[in-house]
Amino acid sequence: MILNEAIQEIVDNVLSVSEELEPNNIEEMTGMIKSSKNVFVMGLGRSGLVARAFAMRLMHLEISVYVVGETTTPALTTEDCLISISGSGETFSIISAAEIARKRGTNIIAVTSYVDSTLGKMADLVVHIKGRTKIDSEKNYITRQINGKHQSLSPLGTLFEVTSLIFLDGLIAQLMVEMGKTEQDMKARHTVIE
Amino acid sequence: MILNEAIQEIVDNVLSVSEELEPNNIEEMTGMIKSSKNVFVMGLGRSGLVARAFAMRLMHLEISVYVVGETTTPALTTEDCLISISGSGETFSIISAAEIARKRGTNIIAVTSYVDSTLGKMADLVVHIKGRTKIDSEKNYITRQINGKHQSLSPLGTLFEVTSLIFLDGLIAQLMVEMGKTEQDMKARHTVIE
Amino acid sequence: MILNEAIQEIVDNVLSVSEELEPNNIEEMTGMIKSSKNVFVMGLGRSGLVARAFAMRLMHLEISVYVVGETTTPALTTEDCLISISGSGETFSIISAAEIARKRGTNIIAVTSYVDSTLGKMADLVVHIKGRTKIDSEKNYITRQINGKHQSLSPLGTLFEVTSLIFLDGLIAQLMVEMGKTEQDMKARHTVIE
Amino acid sequence: MILNEAIQEIVDNVLSVSEELEPNNIEEMTGMIKSSKNVFVMGLGRSGLVARAFAMRLMHLEISVYVVGETTTPALTTEDCLISISGSGETFSIISAAEIARKRGTNIIAVTSYVDSTLGKMADLVVHIKGRTKIDSEKNYITRQINGKHQSLSPLGTLFEVTSLIFLDGLIAQLMVEMGKTEQDMKARHTVIE
Repeated sequence: MILNEAIQEIVDNVLSVSEELEPNNIEEMTGMIKSSKNVFVMGLGRSGLVARAFAMRLMHLEISVYVVGETTTPALTTEDCLISISGSGETFSIISAAEIARKRGTNIIAVTSYVDSTLGKMADLVVHIKGRTKIDSEKNYITRQINGKHQSLSPLGTLFEVTSLIFLDGLIAQLMVEMGKTEQDMKARHTVIE
Repeated sequence: MILNEAIQEIVDNVLSVSEELEPNNIEEMTGMIKSSKNVFVMGLGRSGLVARAFAMRLMHLEISVYVVGETTTPALTTEDCLISISGSGETFSIISAAEIARKRGTNIIAVTSYVDSTLGKMADLVVHIKGRTKIDSEKNYITRQINGKHQSLSPLGTLFEVTSLIFLDGLIAQLMVEMGKTEQDMKARHTVIE
Repeated sequence: MILNEAIQEIVDNVLSVSEELEPNNIEEMTGMIKSSKNVFVMGLGRSGLVARAFAMRLMHLEISVYVVGETTTPALTTEDCLISISGSGETFSIISAAEIARKRGTNIIAVTSYVDSTLGKMADLVVHIKGRTKIDSEKNYITRQINGKHQSLSPLGTLFEVTSLIFLDGLIAQLMVEMGKTEQDMKARHTVIE
Repeated sequence: MILNEAIQEIVDNVLSVSEELEPNNIEEMTGMIKSSKNVFVMGLGRSGLVARAFAMRLMHLEISVYVVGETTTPALTTEDCLISISGSGETFSIISAAEIARKRGTNIIAVTSYVDSTLGKMADLVVHIKGRTKIDSEKNYITRQINGKHQSLSPLGTLFEVTSLIFLDGLIAQLMVEMGKTEQDMKARHTVIE
């Protein structure tokens, strides 16, 4: 089925990104998260859902975390860090938020496909999560055309979004070990009202 | 215009509720809020929006507050209080949440039109916010019929919802004075990312 | 109690705004809403909650409505209208959204305290909802100082937000009559999953 | 790094689920989605974020879709289908919603790890997305203990949630082909206000 091919395309991207992650980079990211007073996460559209899914797990680890745009999110301070998730690194309100964060002395971590994007350049730390690049997209298009398949199986930002989610879930595992937290600890913080 | 009549109907309800509020009751509510480690607010539909609007101001007052259902809301504890906003006091998931809160030893404050509702009976403290009662609704219906107006100008839960919002904004003013907070203090906590 | 005074302050603003509403202006607003293919509403912070509360009632009236920023909100078209709620009329992302709406030929209705603000000037139709103006605020400050009360009882955007909500609920009553909808019709559209 | 191991654990689950998917089952699901007047999606916690991410793409495909709990979601009808995402299939409010859906004659599709759960039994169609089962969890525990690793690398519902997201993104690819939609078509529906 097309469905299985699409899943394979996503898995291939995830594994390729996983191989390229640099231990120093990751260590710096977990370090910033652990040493911040509050962690703020931000993303728009599906990247915003990825940000929220990550925030839930940070909360389970008893890290003080806020989602930009939710009801009880306070102002940024110099003791906080802002994790911005944006495939293009050019999303308008992500850039505006990063500008405010810089003025207020908040550390910025960018999770993006484009290290040289406006967001990438503004960030104190950049994690590169490859999605479908324009060049890939053209090459794939020709391959698909030859094979009689004319459309992408992971439309729009799908590859970046799903890969970011899995990367951040991996980071949660990393944080669990570094912080000596067990799944039982996390369950105790799990919201009980559903 | 119909619009002005509808506004007057809402204002009449607000003023009538304001007159009937009992100082002891209010003092107990602000006391519970100030002495809780975390305040949780909950409501469904438009009452949920009222809960959120209240939560934002509590956050501006530096009270630790969470909205049930948002991303980073943790589990309830015995040191917390849950403020449930429900006109009927019978909304299913509000009742389920109150049951969990009771099991976990969390104080419950009900904001409802029905003191004798399931929620009202479960709560440690009830604030009565009159909306359109069934009897009122019938009487109004006859008055309207006589005047040739056959429909309500504040449909569904409108009276309860708007009156609750204004009551809770009044409570914020009360808390500001009790806590010695100024508008400037609140501004400093206001989210800066928009 | 301070609480009753704060409620009175809000009610006074609501009644004063209600008196100043112009029938032509309101008629134009309900006309635009009824003739649009889709209505989009937008606001930030507590104004965003007001926008959502209004959107729920529009949905109950079977008007096709979307909240900007929610999951399933599509792109704007020339057949749609965008209702932007902003006290200052200068909120950054409200202005950016209005710019996009203009480029796409979407009608803009501004609900704001400042008719001459950037948003006010971009809009096809402006409804003026007075909040606490700077001058009012100073005058009130002196009155309060004389009376020994040094702080505002309706901090930040409270007056604008609550007054906008009640104005928009009045507009729903107006639309009900104009569209010949009853409360029973609205109940049938009410979400049943809670 | 632990992070890479955790990513591998997730990928293994995704590939194993992908292999076990039955074409008839998938065809029935895409059929129900295409023939429904409105599609409703529902999930709680991180499964709710997965539901929203799926809803965005359905909207891009011009399928009329609503997220249960969002502002403008109307009542269910006999012409609609409800897609409920729940790892355990026992989440309280998911079950309540499914009961209401059944009373109203709405088709139910369950995406769950437990085909025999309360939700699974109520559904008209069940898609099985394996997560960490209790037995797996014990076996893994022993393996981990032997290897000196005492905690899970994909805590709580992570495996189910991520695998469901990728499965549903695969389903979007399937629907694109079945409906003859291109990525360009989807871009045109993409929200332009950010």
